[in-house]
Amino acid sequence: MNHVIHLKRRPKGKPQLEDFEFVEEQKPKPKDGEILLKTKYVSVDPYLRGRMRDQESYIPPFELNEPIESGIIAEVVASNNDHFKEGDFINGMLKWKEFQISMGNGLNKVDPDKVSLSAYLGILGLTGLTAYISLDKIGNLKEGETLLVSGASGAVGSTVGQIGKIKGCHVVGIAGTDEKLKLMKEKFGFDKGINYKTTDDMKKAIGDACPNGVDVYFDNVGGEILDAAMDNINKNGRVINCGAISLYNETDVPTGPRYEGIMVRKTVLMQGFLVRDHATEFGPATKQLEQWLNVGKLTYEETIVEGFKNIPQAFLNLFEGKNKGKMVVKI
Amino acid sequence: MNHVIHLKRRPKGKPQLEDFEFVEEQKPKPKDGEILLKTKYVSVDPYLRGRMRDQESYIPPFELNEPIESGIIAEVVASNNDHFKEGDFINGMLKWKEFQISMGNGLNKVDPDKVSLSAYLGILGLTGLTAYISLDKIGNLKEGETLLVSGASGAVGSTVGQIGKIKGCHVVGIAGTDEKLKLMKEKFGFDKGINYKTTDDMKKAIGDACPNGVDVYFDNVGGEILDAAMDNINKNGRVINCGAISLYNETDVPTGPRYEGIMVRKTVLMQGFLVRDHATEFGPATKQLEQWLNVGKLTYEETIVEGFKNIPQAFLNLFEGKNKGKMVVKI
Repeated sequence: MNHVIHLKRRPKGKPQLEDFEFVEEQKPKPKDGEILLKTKYVSVDPYLRGRMRDQESYIPPFELNEPIESGIIAEVVASNNDHFKEGDFINGMLKWKEFQISMGNGLNKVDPDKVSLSAYLGILGLTGLTAYISLDKIGNLKEGETLLVSGASGAVGSTVGQIGKIKGCHVVGIAGTDEKLKLMKEKFGFDKGINYKTTDDMKKAIGDACPNGVDVYFDNVGGEILDAAMDNINKNGRVINCGAISLYNETDVPTGPRYEGIMVRKTVLMQGFLVRDHATEFGPATKQLEQWLNVGKLTYEETIVEGFKNIPQAFLNLFEGKNKGKMVVKI
Repeated sequence: MNHVIHLKRRPKGKPQLEDFEFVEEQKPKPKDGEILLKTKYVSVDPYLRGRMRDQESYIPPFELNEPIESGIIAEVVASNNDHFKEGDFINGMLKWKEFQISMGNGLNKVDPDKVSLSAYLGILGLTGLTAYISLDKIGNLKEGETLLVSGASGAVGSTVGQIGKIKGCHVVGIAGTDEKLKLMKEKFGFDKGINYKTTDDMKKAIGDACPNGVDVYFDNVGGEILDAAMDNINKNGRVINCGAISLYNETDVPTGPRYEGIMVRKTVLMQGFLVRDHATEFGPATKQLEQWLNVGKLTYEETIVEGFKNIPQAFLNLFEGKNKGKMVVKI
């Protein structure tokens, strides 16, 4: 039998285990032109929360009683397709199934000898590309500028901070535990860290950690931390809206202070970013990330949860900040 | 005697006549290298409210018990400076005085035979330049797109709308009286108008007037109208934060719905704009505006108040929406 995870009901507020359902189906057999894939690593990401909501967005919402999909590394275990052979590993947007059939469309082969397979879901996957391309397109970092990052020990945030250091910036990260702060500074080379959970006055804390103000704020969280960043933004500052995890589980319309005044006075640029819009740049961006990885300018952290049955819980843990770096489930 | 208008106290909330003081001084006499200027037209603008506040901003705040300054057209009535002769008209940032002395720095000669003198404070002054340069730098209008403008019958807004029509856009304006809506459509060629004072559901009204959504929102007002525009913004929409007049007189921190979610989902670009940052583009931009003016593609409206003593009241009237087009005081 083949195990599959369905979205059973749309989460209200914070997702719960009961929003998911484990279903069994016959293990599929590849027909002509098809390949049989065995799931090895599953990426769980905050943006999946958005697809569980029945709303217009950049990708269609998940259907109820259908499998959820996310970034997955799988092994080709049977092939009737000339482009893939048994033993190949591929990366693609696939379903939360132990085994599945594909025609190969949208799948990219990955090399397990170059880096660990899970890295293709992180630093060399959409998370690394998000960091690199958004800083390139919107951040426009200049040497000596100050880069502030929220969700800084996470998959995207830790890469953003390291690229900031490569570019010669003063890099300050915000995270929710002292352990994460230590990781940021010792492993990823951030200059300063702020623990938002033990800090009362975030506006002041950011001001203290960024004595020259904030030139670029890379935002993964939204909400009050964004407010405090805006209170410290410099003239011609840039804000990259990459995510807003602090709001994803809100059931009411979240409110906060208005930014219009600051936007005008400081001529701030604020721009939302979705890595999927930049597929044409994935090639050169991946090459740059690989090169930095090879020469040791870039490193990464993963939180690996084991077992197909633990995928939903790993996803829920994202909203508790239980991951350090990329959260991946190993099957 | 020479009459001068001082800032007497910093306005709390909405400015009042009592915030200003009329002072008399000796009429000045030009020394060597100096010119004597007689004020002809005074520009009153919403942004001056910001300079009355004691806060860090893009220009220093006005000092208490010192003259206010704004864009002024003046006549050279005496000259000890080779670059200016009696009878010249100039445009510059000058003090609210009937007569004043200058060395000529920062003054530009204007030609009263080309267009009416007051136009140099409006369509050929900072307001016209604001419209043209911000649309060029941030708006990036494409033929067939939808442009939404607030403060649409005002000096900047009416120029923005007309440039939108020149670029082949569907142009919708928001204003506060039916008379202004009529002006927008009949004189400035807007496709649709929305009276925000008589409309309960601005989100729906904008949706109805912009059936293909909003590609570019040019915001002069901020607040709830910005919220309603964001509710209708398209993927890759651009928001130009040019002003936030609805908030200028707020004494508490204004709050509203958070935009982070929309910014990410729709990959919106939002950017504050101050025309002073773009002085190097004033030359070519003015040429383009003059050319459009000459061939009748661009027109303008002015509200001219008469009399030096009425400058403060004309400024206050801006916050009541009493102007159509550029508000100017003729001395």
